[in-house]
Amino acid sequence: MIRFDMKAGILVVVAGLFMSQPAIGENKALQELMKALLENGTIDQQTYELVLKVAEQEENELSRTPNTDNVDESIRLAVAEEVAKTAGDQPTITTNGKFEIRSKDNDFSFRAGGRIQVDAATYDEDRLRHNDGTELRRARLFASGTLWQAWAYKLQYDFTATGIDGIQDAFIDYKGFDRWKIRFGHFKEPFSLQNMTSSKYIRFMERGMPHLFAPGRNIGLAATASGGNWSFSSGIFGEGRDGSSDDNDEGYAITARGTYAPMLKEDRIFHLGLSASHRITGSTDTVRFRDRPESHLTDIRLVDTGLIDTDSFSRFAGEVVLVFGPIALEGEYYYLYLEREINRNPDPAFSGYYLQGSWFLTGETLNYSASKGSFGKLSPQGIVGKGGIGAWQLALRFSSIDLADEDIMGGEQMTMTFGLNWFPTPNLRLTANYVDVLDVKGGPAAGDEPSAFQLRAQVEF
Amino acid sequence: MIRFDMKAGILVVVAGLFMSQPAIGENKALQELMKALLENGTIDQQTYELVLKVAEQEENELSRTPNTDNVDESIRLAVAEEVAKTAGDQPTITTNGKFEIRSKDNDFSFRAGGRIQVDAATYDEDRLRHNDGTELRRARLFASGTLWQAWAYKLQYDFTATGIDGIQDAFIDYKGFDRWKIRFGHFKEPFSLQNMTSSKYIRFMERGMPHLFAPGRNIGLAATASGGNWSFSSGIFGEGRDGSSDDNDEGYAITARGTYAPMLKEDRIFHLGLSASHRITGSTDTVRFRDRPESHLTDIRLVDTGLIDTDSFSRFAGEVVLVFGPIALEGEYYYLYLEREINRNPDPAFSGYYLQGSWFLTGETLNYSASKGSFGKLSPQGIVGKGGIGAWQLALRFSSIDLADEDIMGGEQMTMTFGLNWFPTPNLRLTANYVDVLDVKGGPAAGDEPSAFQLRAQVEF
Amino acid sequence: MIRFDMKAGILVVVAGLFMSQPAIGENKALQELMKALLENGTIDQQTYELVLKVAEQEENELSRTPNTDNVDESIRLAVAEEVAKTAGDQPTITTNGKFEIRSKDNDFSFRAGGRIQVDAATYDEDRLRHNDGTELRRARLFASGTLWQAWAYKLQYDFTATGIDGIQDAFIDYKGFDRWKIRFGHFKEPFSLQNMTSSKYIRFMERGMPHLFAPGRNIGLAATASGGNWSFSSGIFGEGRDGSSDDNDEGYAITARGTYAPMLKEDRIFHLGLSASHRITGSTDTVRFRDRPESHLTDIRLVDTGLIDTDSFSRFAGEVVLVFGPIALEGEYYYLYLEREINRNPDPAFSGYYLQGSWFLTGETLNYSASKGSFGKLSPQGIVGKGGIGAWQLALRFSSIDLADEDIMGGEQMTMTFGLNWFPTPNLRLTANYVDVLDVKGGPAAGDEPSAFQLRAQVEF
Repeated sequence: MIRFDMKAGILVVVAGLFMSQPAIGENKALQELMKALLENGTIDQQTYELVLKVAEQEENELSRTPNTDNVDESIRLAVAEEVAKTAGDQPTITTNGKFEIRSKDNDFSFRAGGRIQVDAATYDEDRLRHNDGTELRRARLFASGTLWQAWAYKLQYDFTATGIDGIQDAFIDYKGFDRWKIRFGHFKEPFSLQNMTSSKYIRFMERGMPHLFAPGRNIGLAATASGGNWSFSSGIFGEGRDGSSDDNDEGYAITARGTYAPMLKEDRIFHLGLSASHRITGSTDTVRFRDRPESHLTDIRLVDTGLIDTDSFSRFAGEVVLVFGPIALEGEYYYLYLEREINRNPDPAFSGYYLQGSWFLTGETLNYSASKGSFGKLSPQGIVGKGGIGAWQLALRFSSIDLADEDIMGGEQMTMTFGLNWFPTPNLRLTANYVDVLDVKGGPAAGDEPSAFQLRAQVEF
Repeated sequence: MIRFDMKAGILVVVAGLFMSQPAIGENKALQELMKALLENGTIDQQTYELVLKVAEQEENELSRTPNTDNVDESIRLAVAEEVAKTAGDQPTITTNGKFEIRSKDNDFSFRAGGRIQVDAATYDEDRLRHNDGTELRRARLFASGTLWQAWAYKLQYDFTATGIDGIQDAFIDYKGFDRWKIRFGHFKEPFSLQNMTSSKYIRFMERGMPHLFAPGRNIGLAATASGGNWSFSSGIFGEGRDGSSDDNDEGYAITARGTYAPMLKEDRIFHLGLSASHRITGSTDTVRFRDRPESHLTDIRLVDTGLIDTDSFSRFAGEVVLVFGPIALEGEYYYLYLEREINRNPDPAFSGYYLQGSWFLTGETLNYSASKGSFGKLSPQGIVGKGGIGAWQLALRFSSIDLADEDIMGGEQMTMTFGLNWFPTPNLRLTANYVDVLDVKGGPAAGDEPSAFQLRAQVEF
Repeated sequence: MIRFDMKAGILVVVAGLFMSQPAIGENKALQELMKALLENGTIDQQTYELVLKVAEQEENELSRTPNTDNVDESIRLAVAEEVAKTAGDQPTITTNGKFEIRSKDNDFSFRAGGRIQVDAATYDEDRLRHNDGTELRRARLFASGTLWQAWAYKLQYDFTATGIDGIQDAFIDYKGFDRWKIRFGHFKEPFSLQNMTSSKYIRFMERGMPHLFAPGRNIGLAATASGGNWSFSSGIFGEGRDGSSDDNDEGYAITARGTYAPMLKEDRIFHLGLSASHRITGSTDTVRFRDRPESHLTDIRLVDTGLIDTDSFSRFAGEVVLVFGPIALEGEYYYLYLEREINRNPDPAFSGYYLQGSWFLTGETLNYSASKGSFGKLSPQGIVGKGGIGAWQLALRFSSIDLADEDIMGGEQMTMTFGLNWFPTPNLRLTANYVDVLDVKGGPAAGDEPSAFQLRAQVEF
């Protein structure tokens, strides 16, 4: 019994010794001891082997254990603590073509960015001189951010303009409500699809001519809501960026736009939109409608109403979009009705529309935002410089505008534009446009039907 | 004795086995062995229980031990090393409403930010037309930073101005001395409390009318010092931002301001200040003093000295502030004395003052900086969007200005302004002001006493 | 034998117990037990000491082991994993006087920065009035970055200019070829050494007068290549920033510059350069050459060709630079040849040159970039504020210009400028220049030979 006890004791002791050395497992001295104990008869062969086997098993088990579990249980915590102390509260920094810093809790963010658009154009002149040349079309910087989660701001400036006229967005958002957002400051009146789509993301170098009916940015207060496939935005807006200095008070407008997408799948979109705006003229009690022929380098406007004495005017736009994978069809119709200031003067109405189709040869689909009811930044399937060829898109547009009604002889214009867009990366766009003025009836440049070939290089960051 | 030895041996062995398994503590095989030893009589019940108890105690002790000490001693070091290698030298990034990057050693920092102020105003007109409307009052971006610890810079531009006139701060600081700081470039001449307090932090939308006596920013060289409750700044300044192009050399001014706070507790402040400036007129040997009626949308100045031929002029301002918790009383008196260029013309003196009181309904105290002798960014006790209501402040100001002396008939004006400020977060401010022009005697708009109701939305970032 | 067994058992047991407590090593209870076993005779003194010794040895071995190997093998991995998860993909942030964020894979970067140059000047007038004063010479902000590795952009604006004229660089780069780089947008035509060297890094406050022969920035397309000691750049460029509005199309130029450094060691540089440009005038069919006398505060140009009717003109520049450690000798010769628009008018040719030497008293060497063929940012050996005195440089320049040929009486001017530059840190520069107009023959200011003492403070970030 003593012998047995001794064996058991030795067994237990030796097993304990082996096991007491986790992750080392090479206690040769103890192995030697075991051998000595075997040799001097303290333990027998059977016990010796049993002990070694048990020890080995336990050792294996133990040697695995600390490598995984030991680390996980206690040390991982220490690691996480240490990392958190040093780097854990570091904000997230976005670099992939868009500089943004966002706090860990998402309460704060800061973003700085901008765009450059450089153009060149050559004209096939008809009657008037449209000078060939180059131009910085837009050169903008902005800063924007989130403050305390519920608030946001943006300040954007275009350096191609002079002084206060270069201020683009300059607003504050309150996003603390469930579905609604309040915006105040200087921003776009919500009106029409091509107006609400950034100049970076339109199909051609310039918006279709009926864009001259759209209001621009003004100082105002607006409320915006959106659901899964609809958006609505409505606001009240003053006039321009600086205080009125004429002898009349500033005017104001009520403007609203709603969009709805009855079909909204990844590559099948059916979008409808309606906009309406009523403006009371104020310090400037005249209005003027005119625009360049979908080409910005020339300074000539082929249609132009001249200044019209105006009390108030209403404008409307209807939008339809169909997207089938790489193909998109878009159209808008605009109507504008004026009430004259001088009583005897008749009240004219103007209108216009455009239809455009586009096709991604490389298979991409336009990036539609249902919550904004407009198009956004494109992601080409292949990146130039990373083995891809970018996204290639063909586009064709027909636009028509009629600025002649009653006593206003602003002229009519029909224009066809063919476009090729190349997006080597999501941040870059190279565009070639061929603009053909098909017909100009009446107005200041009756019968002048030039064409233009123009190029743009664009980067956004 | 052998039995005793055996028991002791077994006890020791088993305790050792248990203890040899730190952090695992579930060696069922050994528990089985103990049971077997008990059952076959090698150990008795008492020993069995004792062993188990001791083993358990030791185990508990051990299982706690490695989780803390083991980790702390060796692994924490390894963790810290690894973290430092990967992320340790990362600069500190501030996001909470203020984007700043600061190197670990504090030698370098970079900050980008700005402000937007959007106004709307409506006038209750008296004799002259003051047009209602909206306005971008300020839209600024800036970059600033620290270089090699001892140096700093700031460049700030206001996009509501045109060209070089939009440059606000554009200076370099040397901070390498103990108590003194040297600043050179384009910055504010140190003069008067409301002038030195940022437009973001003044009590109303506009500074009190006597502010027209204060110099603006000019190119100069200044030295600044400050202690626990005082500040002093003095410098020499040229004229404007661009070189003079008239037929005379640019003039210059020596300007100084000192402040002292005899009482400076967390919510009890008594502040005194004195400013003096002497300017020699140069290329422009005339001066003109005029200002809008504490409302910026109108372009009309109710008081106006017109151009005065001037050789030199001296101006002075005295400041008193009392802060009792949420209540603050502030007042400044200004005096300006001109020496005429044309000998026979008499030398006039003008003066003005304002008194204003403000009260935080929500209990905050104005953020006073003794080292600058001015007021800074407010931190509301509750954040709107985070369950709070922000800070609410009422304010009342009376101001008086006298621009009539000798042959100069600039007029006198007294104005009362009532204000309500709401700070939903430290970065946002919404202000409503009712400005009542109480009395206008003489000057270009004698007897025109309009009132204005005006709103401002402000964000800083 | 039993006693021996017991001893051995106890020895083994106790050693095991000691060893089972790695890194703790203070099991007093077991030491007490050993003492008790010794005292009650279970073990003898010899065994007692042997056990203690063995235990101590093993303990030492074990206590070292886990501190190093244990950590290295398993935990370092866990640490690295944890760190990587939390902070590993963080971009690199540069702060040392230059704010830049660069993604880990180097595919993207964003940089924001700028410069401020503030000047003061006083003139020792001769015949004409050159007004003393102060000026913001340049105040620029820019954003630049890398996009998808192969692309880059830069947008820079100078706030001392008005509107679109303030736009400096506004370009896109494609760097995806091996040796070539394509640049399009608004940037400097590659011409002459002092033109291609940034205004931050030239030896004096203003470039030498023959700089009036250099083209500025225009909208264009250029290709650039460089090797270890050479650079070549060539492009086609339009006119200015905005579209032409005159009755002629915009003109264009072909411009190229090549540089070669036959010797290029750390402190021994021999640089040669050649530039050529041919411009067809377009909408502006006149040109004018004139410049201030190497001092910008004055508005007077001592030499001036007036408007010259021009069809086209060609210009050339040759560069030589020698750098011997802290000493640099630089020179350029310019030649310009005009073809007149009006047939009977003779075709004039103008020319000019400058020679300048500079010496770093503190031993620095100019920072030459062979791939650009121009000079860059200097790193002083000691930093002011970090125990150093910065870099101190003396410079002397002689320049000569001849704008009189055929019927064009633009005048001739010789100018000597002495300069002292102090670079307290790599980001800061303080410069004093003494400009002495040695001789003015003919032209609009014949015989007016003023001198100027001028100071500049410059910061870049």
